[in-house]
Amino acid sequence: MEKTAPLSPTSKGGLTRQRILDSARRCFATHGYERTTIRRVAEEAEIDKSSVMKYFGTKENLFRECVAWDIPIDALTSEGQEESAQRYVSTMLRMWEADPHSPMAVLLRTSMTSELAASMLREHMTRASIDVIERHIDADEARLRAAIFSAIMMGLASGRHIIGLPDLTDADIDRIVEVASPMVATLLHP
Amino acid sequence: MEKTAPLSPTSKGGLTRQRILDSARRCFATHGYERTTIRRVAEEAEIDKSSVMKYFGTKENLFRECVAWDIPIDALTSEGQEESAQRYVSTMLRMWEADPHSPMAVLLRTSMTSELAASMLREHMTRASIDVIERHIDADEARLRAAIFSAIMMGLASGRHIIGLPDLTDADIDRIVEVASPMVATLLHP
Repeated sequence: MEKTAPLSPTSKGGLTRQRILDSARRCFATHGYERTTIRRVAEEAEIDKSSVMKYFGTKENLFRECVAWDIPIDALTSEGQEESAQRYVSTMLRMWEADPHSPMAVLLRTSMTSELAASMLREHMTRASIDVIERHIDADEARLRAAIFSAIMMGLASGRHIIGLPDLTDADIDRIVEVASPMVATLLHP
Repeated sequence: MEKTAPLSPTSKGGLTRQRILDSARRCFATHGYERTTIRRVAEEAEIDKSSVMKYFGTKENLFRECVAWDIPIDALTSEGQEESAQRYVSTMLRMWEADPHSPMAVLLRTSMTSELAASMLREHMTRASIDVIERHIDADEARLRAAIFSAIMMGLASGRHIIGLPDLTDADIDRIVEVASPMVATLLHP
């Protein structure tokens, strides 16, 4: 993966870059990876196509930046196992709530119809979630527990934000966190 | 939803019908709802287009039959709460394993790119899973627990069969069931 030079988010270039990323996330989330073109992103951002090329080079690079995200699992982990579980669930749901076109949401939506996106989601979930959570589990089958954790969190987020199950969309995040955390604690710290 | 007359699965008509359904499931799972046409299904089944029309009428009807499935939750529920949890997880994973183009898999894949499919998945999960599981839960927040259960089972199945997380695809179903069941029991019977 080619890295583009970091820009201050408040410089002119940084603002343009952010505007392109925002438009691209909307486009990828709505139309999928295959049907999103650099032209479409440029139109949506009301920016010249050549600017998009200048900042991101290719559609694949643009997509990679759109779906880069970190879950601050280490920072969320505390001594208390119930508390950690609560923080994982709460942070994940609140991050998604705050931005329906978050990198995670875009990657999940596009991964159903694009093999490139699916392979990036696999890699990302493995590296950013399973590898990290595993280190915090002191039990048999730590890695499998970490993988199940990642998958069920994805299911919970999809149920609320992508499928839109009424019983999940209508519920307060606090209630979901309260009900789901003991389950997560049982999985990670049996 | 219009009901087509039931046919014995071994009669000539029943066999043709089944052949059309099998092709249609493959088409919908691979190409999504929008890009699947009656013509494509007919070609894939090596059957005349008019036969597909005769048996199913419209693409929407054909899709509805393709994605109709029942999870035998009542039959899986036993006196033992751990045992019930184990049976739910095991049956769901084994059903999917046995048929990667099962109705559930087709509906989940297509729901990411089709609002019709997403609304059918919402209704189906609500009626076939949440409504039923709720009746077996004797705890506060029974309905929310049932909804979280449905969402996390979807996440587990997607992680293994759609995203293909290596840590889940490489694991024996028995191991997954063993690790995931106590978590499900904690959720449903706190």
